[in-house]
Parts: sequence; C-alpha cells; structure tokens
Amino acid sequence: MGEFELIRQYFMPLARLHGPHSVVVGPGDDCAVQRVPSGFDLVFSIDTLVEGVHFPRNYRPDYLAWRTLAVAASDLAAMGAEPTCFTLALTLPEVNEPWLWDFAGGLGKAAESFGLVLAGGDTTRGPLTLSVQVHGLVEQGSAICRSGAKPGDLVVVSGTLGDAGAALDYLLPDGSLEAGSYIEPRHPLTDEQYVLERYHHPRPRLKLGEALRHLATAAIDVSDGLLADLNHILEASSVGASVERAHIPVSPALARLKGSAATDYALHSGDDYELCATLAEATWANAPPSLKQQFTVIGVVESTPGLRLDGTTVMSGSDAVGFDHFRGKA
Amino acid sequence: MGEFELIRQYFMPLARLHGPHSVVVGPGDDCAVQRVPSGFDLVFSIDTLVEGVHFPRNYRPDYLAWRTLAVAASDLAAMGAEPTCFTLALTLPEVNEPWLWDFAGGLGKAAESFGLVLAGGDTTRGPLTLSVQVHGLVEQGSAICRSGAKPGDLVVVSGTLGDAGAALDYLLPDGSLEAGSYIEPRHPLTDEQYVLERYHHPRPRLKLGEALRHLATAAIDVSDGLLADLNHILEASSVGASVERAHIPVSPALARLKGSAATDYALHSGDDYELCATLAEATWANAPPSLKQQFTVIGVVESTPGLRLDGTTVMSGSDAVGFDHFRGKA
Repeated sequence: MGEFELIRQYFMPLARLHGPHSVVVGPGDDCAVQRVPSGFDLVFSIDTLVEGVHFPRNYRPDYLAWRTLAVAASDLAAMGAEPTCFTLALTLPEVNEPWLWDFAGGLGKAAESFGLVLAGGDTTRGPLTLSVQVHGLVEQGSAICRSGAKPGDLVVVSGTLGDAGAALDYLLPDGSLEAGSYIEPRHPLTDEQYVLERYHHPRPRLKLGEALRHLATAAIDVSDGLLADLNHILEASSVGASVERAHIPVSPALARLKGSAATDYALHSGDDYELCATLAEATWANAPPSLKQQFTVIGVVESTPGLRLDGTTVMSGSDAVGFDHFRGKA
Repeated sequence: MGEFELIRQYFMPLARLHGPHSVVVGPGDDCAVQRVPSGFDLVFSIDTLVEGVHFPRNYRPDYLAWRTLAVAASDLAAMGAEPTCFTLALTLPEVNEPWLWDFAGGLGKAAESFGLVLAGGDTTRGPLTLSVQVHGLVEQGSAICRSGAKPGDLVVVSGTLGDAGAALDYLLPDGSLEAGSYIEPRHPLTDEQYVLERYHHPRPRLKLGEALRHLATAAIDVSDGLLADLNHILEASSVGASVERAHIPVSPALARLKGSAATDYALHSGDDYELCATLAEATWANAPPSLKQQFTVIGVVESTPGLRLDGTTVMSGSDAVGFDHFRGKA
C-alpha cells in the first residue's frame, strides 16, 4: 500500500468526525484552509513524540495515538483555547496495516473526545516519530500566557499530580524509556491500574483551561514536572513563588503506592497534563465553586525571584530541572 | 546545553526577523497566537523530511534548513497564499552546536526570503527529522484548490522542470538517497552547478502563486514529478488531460547535460517546486504578459479521465507513480 491510499483509508475518516467546524479545506490538497471567525485569535502548538524517547518501544498504537493528541491538546488547555483541528506528520518505519488500524482508532477516539478534526498531514518513511500541531480559538487577546503572574497571586493546580510519573515504575521496572519493550503489568492492582491509566490516557484539561480565561493571570500545563513548569511561569513573569509541600495534591492511589514519596512524584515527574495557574486572590475568592473545587491552592506568587518549597529555594532564576529531552530525566 | 537554552540561542532570533506580522504570541509559551485579519482565511501545511529518505545523510545543515522551509512554503505557493509564519519540530540525535549554528543560519535566510517568521516549535532527541508547518493567508474563499480544473482549461507550468532530479546524479552517483554521504562534486561544471543549486536551494514560486489567485482553476506544486502531480489535479477535479512532450520546459543546462533524456527528467522527477496550474483559455489569453512569460502551456484539460502524453495514456484513474515515500522512487 502506498502513501496516498494509506492516507485515504486510515486518516480521511478523522477529517469527517464532526459536524460544523472551521476547516473549509481538509486533507488531500496542498494545504488545509481554516476560517478563523472574526474577533478570534488562532492558538497553535506543535509537539513531537519519538519512539524510545517519549514513549516505550512497541507501545500500543491506540495508546500512542491518544497520548500524542492529548499532549498537544494540553497546550491548548494551558492557553484557555477551544480546540478546533490538528495536523499529523507521521513517520513510520514500514506500512503495517494492523498497527495503522489501531493507531487510527485511538486517534479517532482522542480527536472526538477533545473536539479536534483532522485538517491535514504528511506520512513519511523513517524511524517512528509523530509531530502533531493543534489549533484552537480564543476571543482576541484572551489567550492565557505564562507571563502575567503578579506578586500576591495564588498558585493553583488542577486534579492530582505524580500519577503518570509513578506509572513508569510499573510500565518499565528500570524506569527507563530508552530500552526494552512495552511490558504489560503481570499482576495488575487497582492502584497500579489507576496510575497506568493516567499515563496511557492523559485527559487534557480543556474545559478547565477555557474556564480560566479572563480569570487566570498565567497558566501552563504540567508536562515536565510541577516545579519545572511553575518555574517557567515565574521566569516568564519575572516573579518568584513559595509553595507548600503539604498542599500538593496527590491521588489516594499514589499515596497508597508510594507513601511519603508520593509528593516527590507530584513535584518532579511530568506527564500528568494537569494545569498550573496563577490568579489574583480576589479573583479566586469570587470564582465559581464549581471551578474552585477542580483546583488546589498550593502557594503564592512573590516578587523575590526563585521558587521556594517550604521556605527552601529549589529553583533560582533559570534552572529548569524537569524533563529536558536533551539532558534526559533530571 | 539543554533544550531550553538551545531554543533561546539559535531559534529565538528567527522569531524577530520581520517587522509587523500577524503573530501576537511567538515562541516560548505553551502555544503561539496568530491574529488572522478579518476577511482572510488561514492556509497551512505540514511537511516532514527524514534524513536518508528526503535528504542525504550528512547533508549540509544550512542547505537542509533552506530545503525544509522551501518545500513547505511551496505548498503555500500552490494555494496562492501569502506566507506569514511557521513552526518547526526539530528532532536531533545530539546537540551539535556548529551544526545548529549553520542550520539556524540557513533557516534564517530562507525565512527572510520567503516572508516567514518563526512562531513556535519543539526540539526533541532522536533520529534527524524535521517537521515544518507553514501558515499563509488568502482573502476568504480564494485559496486555489486542486479540484477546480475544467475541460478546456489550459495546463501550464512555471519555469523549467527536471533540474533538481538531474542534480541527484551529481550529488550521489548511485542515484540513491538511502546510502552514502553527501559528496561534493569533484569537478564542478557550470551546468552541474546549476542543477545542483536547483536541488539545494529550491525557490518556492510564492509570488507566482499569489498572481494565479482568481485566475487559476486549480494548482499544485511539482514535488513528486510533473505527471504524478498533474494527475493529482485531474483526480481531484474528475477530469483528464493531454500533454505535449515537446512543450515540457527544460533548462538549457539540463538539455546540455542529458540530451534527449532531459524531458524524461522533467516529466518524472520531483524536487523542482515549480507550479503546475490550470486556467480557462480566455483567462490565459487576457492574463498580464508579465505573468504569462513565467509559464509554459503544456497541454489541455479534457473530460475523458486519465493523463495522455502525445496521445498515449500514461496515467489512468488513480495510478500515482511519482515519488511515494512508502514505495521508494517509482
């Protein structure tokens, strides 16, 4: 099967998942065309996942498709954007039809779940690599940037952190994504299954991101680890922050699995794709209870640069110690 | 050097190349933000280039950067779009600073030449792979699609074809991009240098594409070979065409290098990034001479499906025999 038939058979259905949308020319032409409504800004982000670096070798194709689109869509959530469409650049070592079938199935489920229609793409031969660019919309000027945090703002995070990081312990016992194959847990336990599911099927906080628009002064999605990602906000905003270890939200499953180490997972490991945001104290006080119950206040923004955990500086200035793909896991 | 410093040092300058543009949030946040002017459509395309598949191993990084952006920008030309910005997903086996310096230099030259500002990107570790998404603008509804060709339309191509394909003979004597290293021609001749330059530095026909808007009924860029690419137009438009071999434009350099085989290069080899378009006969007759002199009429669109060369059917229905990255060179 050649490239063109492959695209037609497996990916064209993803261009027709939804009803009315802003894509006026979809896959199959030299370019796609999107009609951005008057009064809106286009928000977009490109992400690449490489086999053996960002996901295990021989990882399930349906999980891979979900993860790839979720990771990209999470960046839209962090900007408060409503998802519209995506492009997929898929590099494959060979045309493996069962693999493509499963991949397209997972991608379709994710696309439908996140409200994204396939607008275009490219398929090439080479080592398994996926680049996805997601597009979203916000009212003009309302995208939430990293640079707006102000001293006195509260620091909040959505959901619980550290689950996906802990999942790696059960996915590959040596903790490495570099070597070895995907290993199904031999004796799945409920708590293990919970954290594994958090790794396999991250849920980008799209609705929460949209709800934060006009409320948050800054936001980021937690992909590299809470400390590293919060530090990106602090650097972009030229501020510092103090965070309380006791307030970091962890799931009951993670607490049972890791005991007192659970919070370390929550502080340092990425892949949860929760949101970290800053809001003025008065904004937080007046926010709808339905929104507040999705977030936990973990600290406060301060004018002194650096990030302090229980009073001890853990990041000063430009030390980013999260997951850096050119340095390996910190 | 880590990912973040790398991005800052080498790529941030490309986000500041131009004066006023539509990118309101550039690299460094979770997403980029583009303000699409009211009354315009966003036109976009993603392309991936893999080392050893789309370009030779150890290819010069400045040439690679130019080629990558040119290949992507050429899709904008085919839609008649004005370039605005691009994202770059760069996967590198290692952080090689001299390589990055040269790559960023070539990318900057290409970006400036094509009118594209860097809006965002992702850098990851892995086998050398580049995905670029280019963005352009057209007045609402004026993008030139592949699907509008009508029986009686003339088929035209810009410039000359086959040069870049012939260059491969001088780049790698065995004609393969799969094996071997980049080889500088040992005895460069003027004609060889000319075709090599066409391969190394394709010039997407952006101004010609914009000029074709409101004139052409369909257009495509010649990336896979004239016959294969024209066939894409014919299929998308549910028409056929007859083309005259004697009218296929080849450069004097190619004619001298390849003699009577020059036209075969022009018909079958890709990488020239010229435009192939269809126009109503009356539109062509009334087109500005400055436009007409950039194009050659090579044939006519017909209602009978298939592509005929001097009366012999060379493509029928859905046979695409250009460069298919999953089948190798046809």
